[in-house]
Amino acid sequence: MCGKLQVPVSNNGHQPEPTINLDHGDPTMYESYWKEVGQDFSLTIPGFQSLSYFSNPKNLCWFLEPKLEDEIKNLHENVGNAVTENRHVVVGTGSSQLILAALFALSNSVNDPINPVSVVSASPYYSSYPEMTNFLRSQLFEWSGDARGFDKDGPYIEMVTSPNNPDGVIRQPVINRPEGMVVHDLAYYWPQYTAITSAADHDVMLFTVSKCTGHAGSRIGWALVKDESIARKMVKFIEINTIGVSKEAQLRAANILEIISLSCQSAHTFAWIKCKEGMDCEKLFRGHKILTRSGRRFGCDPEYVRVSMLSRDEEFDLFLQRLSTIHGDGINGN
Amino acid sequence: MCGKLQVPVSNNGHQPEPTINLDHGDPTMYESYWKEVGQDFSLTIPGFQSLSYFSNPKNLCWFLEPKLEDEIKNLHENVGNAVTENRHVVVGTGSSQLILAALFALSNSVNDPINPVSVVSASPYYSSYPEMTNFLRSQLFEWSGDARGFDKDGPYIEMVTSPNNPDGVIRQPVINRPEGMVVHDLAYYWPQYTAITSAADHDVMLFTVSKCTGHAGSRIGWALVKDESIARKMVKFIEINTIGVSKEAQLRAANILEIISLSCQSAHTFAWIKCKEGMDCEKLFRGHKILTRSGRRFGCDPEYVRVSMLSRDEEFDLFLQRLSTIHGDGINGN
Repeated sequence: MCGKLQVPVSNNGHQPEPTINLDHGDPTMYESYWKEVGQDFSLTIPGFQSLSYFSNPKNLCWFLEPKLEDEIKNLHENVGNAVTENRHVVVGTGSSQLILAALFALSNSVNDPINPVSVVSASPYYSSYPEMTNFLRSQLFEWSGDARGFDKDGPYIEMVTSPNNPDGVIRQPVINRPEGMVVHDLAYYWPQYTAITSAADHDVMLFTVSKCTGHAGSRIGWALVKDESIARKMVKFIEINTIGVSKEAQLRAANILEIISLSCQSAHTFAWIKCKEGMDCEKLFRGHKILTRSGRRFGCDPEYVRVSMLSRDEEFDLFLQRLSTIHGDGINGN
Repeated sequence: MCGKLQVPVSNNGHQPEPTINLDHGDPTMYESYWKEVGQDFSLTIPGFQSLSYFSNPKNLCWFLEPKLEDEIKNLHENVGNAVTENRHVVVGTGSSQLILAALFALSNSVNDPINPVSVVSASPYYSSYPEMTNFLRSQLFEWSGDARGFDKDGPYIEMVTSPNNPDGVIRQPVINRPEGMVVHDLAYYWPQYTAITSAADHDVMLFTVSKCTGHAGSRIGWALVKDESIARKMVKFIEINTIGVSKEAQLRAANILEIISLSCQSAHTFAWIKCKEGMDCEKLFRGHKILTRSGRRFGCDPEYVRVSMLSRDEEFDLFLQRLSTIHGDGINGN
């Protein structure tokens, strides 16, 4: 399941050029688009605005700006990629915080205070899942690796990233047991990454402005949650963790989503590259001053790497140019 | 140590007025000031700005906006409340996230992977400390209550809030053992709350825009950290937790701190109120539609409450007016 794309790469010796960092998914490729869009979509915030912790004390998610909630629902309706009726919208400081909030909420819904709930995902999985799950050594949940090899009894949480990071594959849960709880990370389920075939209709669905519009610096994500008690626990997590989410970022995201509701732009997705069997592909690329993320980080062999295609156009052109000059022995060339 | 201020309160029966919520410290009292300051201090962000996750990849805190770092240092220099030389500045999504980041960093610096590090604070302590420490049932750290009763051997983390929330007292650590690590939460160490007698010079010092300028909705806090490895671990926590901090909020905070560098405003601090011995003071106030936070939440008796003085002027006037009409039996009147 790890193989997807093979490209010719090789080593032609010294590379004095600066390092191209394609290790992380920094979506600066969207910058030129937003420059073209121009100043009309600037946001101005007066000094006295948004002092309070609260956005709407009557809402289940009391720190969610009403305009952002409206624009999230509008956008999903316009794009047709997710059901929002009878869903609670929970805003987070990026979808990272929402992943943790979901793990907290779902594990807290299990009637077993002794054993941590297993968290799994089919490989290749988002490379941050293991660390995010385990960094605080929580007794509520623990990382249990590849969902395909999961054989423990009892409750578990399966993370389903669809389209998948790193390989872009449309995914479904692979375990499908009654004790299972599923979090659908739909960060890339937008028309610039994949065909939108139907409105996603799952219990917990996560989205983020970073991948939707490119505004990763804003740190705004949102969850659409069917069950009220799960939504409340996610809100509780964010309350304890950061007492809500920046109002400036929410207001700007609302403006940006309003624009996107009118027009979705085309763009690349990550590339999942395979070198020759037995090669350390990340090391090879690093030798050419190109930083990528090893397949090991996604539970695969080191002959795979993920290459981020989300850099600025100039940087991506430089990457293609450098790649085309790489040739030599020990590397697949199909 | 829990007693500080006694005010006459009593119950004269039905109160049809709307509830006054003084339970939480929402600093909306600053709103009128910022309205007077006017539009000159508005922030405008064009659509193409701050798309990247990164603010300064070369900085230890790679998601910290350089202008915010400059303004934080300027402000401390102007106010004289904290030493910034040879300190690492770590920005957080409010100081809540920085408290968790500090617990993560300090407990990870201990060579004992088996036992969680005890977290303590002298009562009355910030009411969120117990929940923040324990909500994820981390095996790295655990809440161990009042620092004055702490008698376990081994490493511990003492939270020192100075001036203290809820009672405004200037504090020092109370345990003072070599294995101890101290986090100084200096959210209220500003001239509008207390006299600035010297520049604080501790290992880990936390500040927040919420209490400094009233912009709680921005969720911007910062830590001044002496030890580089501790600072790196705090950055790591924020990286895993939220992949950095909203750029919009940082840019606005930088603007706001720039103004504050020129002028610090006077303001109230929390009030710590005692009712008659044996009374449930929070319940009494609630009967008069005034929400406060019980002394129990700060490790004290229920005859104490914390009253937030950070509400809008109109609400605070209504509170004083309602308080003055409360009289009757069963309540202290000194």
